[in-house]
Amino acid sequence: MITLNVDLQQRSYPILIGPALLEEANCFLPHIPGRQVLVVTNETIAPLYLDKLKNTLHTMQIRDLILPDGEQYKTLETLNLIFDKLLQEGFDRSCTLIALGGGVVGDITGFAAASYQRGVNFIQAPTTLLAQVDSSVGGKTGVNHSLGKNMIGAFYQPRAVIADTNTLNTLDDRQLSAGMAEVIKYGLIRDDKFLGWLEAHVEQIMQRDPAHLAEAIQRSCINKAEVVTADELESGQRALLNLGHTYGHAIETGMGYGVWLHGEAVGAGICLAVQHSAILGWISEPDVKRVVNLISRVGLPTSRPDKLSADDMLTNMRLDKKVHNGVIRLVLLQSVGNAIVTGDYPPETLRRTLDIA
Amino acid sequence: MITLNVDLQQRSYPILIGPALLEEANCFLPHIPGRQVLVVTNETIAPLYLDKLKNTLHTMQIRDLILPDGEQYKTLETLNLIFDKLLQEGFDRSCTLIALGGGVVGDITGFAAASYQRGVNFIQAPTTLLAQVDSSVGGKTGVNHSLGKNMIGAFYQPRAVIADTNTLNTLDDRQLSAGMAEVIKYGLIRDDKFLGWLEAHVEQIMQRDPAHLAEAIQRSCINKAEVVTADELESGQRALLNLGHTYGHAIETGMGYGVWLHGEAVGAGICLAVQHSAILGWISEPDVKRVVNLISRVGLPTSRPDKLSADDMLTNMRLDKKVHNGVIRLVLLQSVGNAIVTGDYPPETLRRTLDIA
Repeated sequence: MITLNVDLQQRSYPILIGPALLEEANCFLPHIPGRQVLVVTNETIAPLYLDKLKNTLHTMQIRDLILPDGEQYKTLETLNLIFDKLLQEGFDRSCTLIALGGGVVGDITGFAAASYQRGVNFIQAPTTLLAQVDSSVGGKTGVNHSLGKNMIGAFYQPRAVIADTNTLNTLDDRQLSAGMAEVIKYGLIRDDKFLGWLEAHVEQIMQRDPAHLAEAIQRSCINKAEVVTADELESGQRALLNLGHTYGHAIETGMGYGVWLHGEAVGAGICLAVQHSAILGWISEPDVKRVVNLISRVGLPTSRPDKLSADDMLTNMRLDKKVHNGVIRLVLLQSVGNAIVTGDYPPETLRRTLDIA
Repeated sequence: MITLNVDLQQRSYPILIGPALLEEANCFLPHIPGRQVLVVTNETIAPLYLDKLKNTLHTMQIRDLILPDGEQYKTLETLNLIFDKLLQEGFDRSCTLIALGGGVVGDITGFAAASYQRGVNFIQAPTTLLAQVDSSVGGKTGVNHSLGKNMIGAFYQPRAVIADTNTLNTLDDRQLSAGMAEVIKYGLIRDDKFLGWLEAHVEQIMQRDPAHLAEAIQRSCINKAEVVTADELESGQRALLNLGHTYGHAIETGMGYGVWLHGEAVGAGICLAVQHSAILGWISEPDVKRVVNLISRVGLPTSRPDKLSADDMLTNMRLDKKVHNGVIRLVLLQSVGNAIVTGDYPPETLRRTLDIA
């Protein structure tokens, strides 16, 4: 087992990464201060891992809630199902919520923990690659609104992130690919050595070789933890983690939540961001080819869906959280391994990017 | 105009109290960092003060949202109306929400500000006595759930509290009485001099003499600001501010939100708390009579509604946020002007209290 630390003073917490951690009571119990525990999961994960985790925590007063699976359920209505359950069970402020699942379960359960009785204990137990390398770390929680992705939520840190890498054995190929979008992102924005390693070992990772998967997760989490430690509330460099996300959110909102997976939309969004950076003359065409090639090798789309026009994309991008005084601020590459957040680009370059890809 | 300060380091903010402040752009503009402003109010307050405030802020890009009036609308559904409006208007992270109204408008708008894009700017412009002396100060925001009061929310501080005392001229008598429950509370838990002053001047206050009302508001806000400064997140003494509230929330939940006003339920709850304290032998029967007399003189109920049995009350009290491991923790008086939070009382004394009153 590997232990990393997210250093946020009194809100610091560990990230535990390793096989079979869902069976290790010692990983969970130090982070559960009371006796009441609600495990929130979904209908896909529950048959695979819920009993295992409940058995591990059998000394607690443990309850579970099984949500429908999919981004289209990341709503205020689903959030309220968690509050209903907590109140029906008489759970008090000393209770702990555990999110057992992917990014959707983690985001919605985290926001429930932030809001129930104005804040209760929370543990992330991510079961997808995307959640293990990205969404479970850093405290971004929330739900979608029909007019925009992740528009309602809170910054709320978990007490621990416990990533059982065995859960990746049951992940379907599409979900594995989706997770790789966020892995590649770290290389592109701040870690060119990691990017080179990924290019050299992408086949082993996609074949789920445990050692290579574990290394990809660990190096991703180190990057994520460093960024979050430096800028918890995204007043500066944390925004770099959104490479490809403004384009990607426009795809998710435009297609309807759940049609493209988040990681698929981010994969295409990364290709749009590098294309845009090349149009600005910041990176070269071979750089673009290099990135598009890697995104393609992990099985992700490299351009926007045919169903959405450039105009559709622009309309949806204007609703992003990084819009400020009408300007769409984007994460763009100054070189491979080095990104900036900027609204200072000629608007027609965004239009040209969307027309091309 | 009087200015008080709530000292919470980088989250510090002023409380401005005085006549005609809704007409003073200089009170508002220093606390509005961007140009987008949404005023959230209700159908009772809008015809009286909305145009006045919009005129004061005419240099901003100002929009408004008028909610239905009443505790029964303090729900996730109403909260979502605020998100709908913000997204339809394309409001970004630099926007400011202003709550123009009483406690319900303030609580729900504050939670919307805490959650929209994970947090935007927020100003409280309270228009009821209860909101001016209590709910607008301190950062408690949230909505109700059918199974419990204020069960969903966040601690989220405003950038300023701007209390225009002229708005009390249009407050109906029932709302004025309700606000007095929270005013009397401060005297009982920590300020016996203030309690004595209230007993001496209750007639002038209830006749809305401006000088006496202003003094009651100021002395209440000084108490509230001191408590919040010492314990922002209610890990200790802030819980004393809940004198009468656990009994009161049980009345509100049991009768249906909005049937009794919050302040009416707290008035009766305070009488139950002093009765309970007397049963425990901590205060005398004359002390009880003194408090019940004052609650009665401001026009508030002094016992639970006939419609709720002692059993109903107990059932609802068990759902309170201060329940811990099944024990109902209560604010009780050790003497007049000195309260404690405790779960360490013989359970039958709570039952006897509810049987009596």
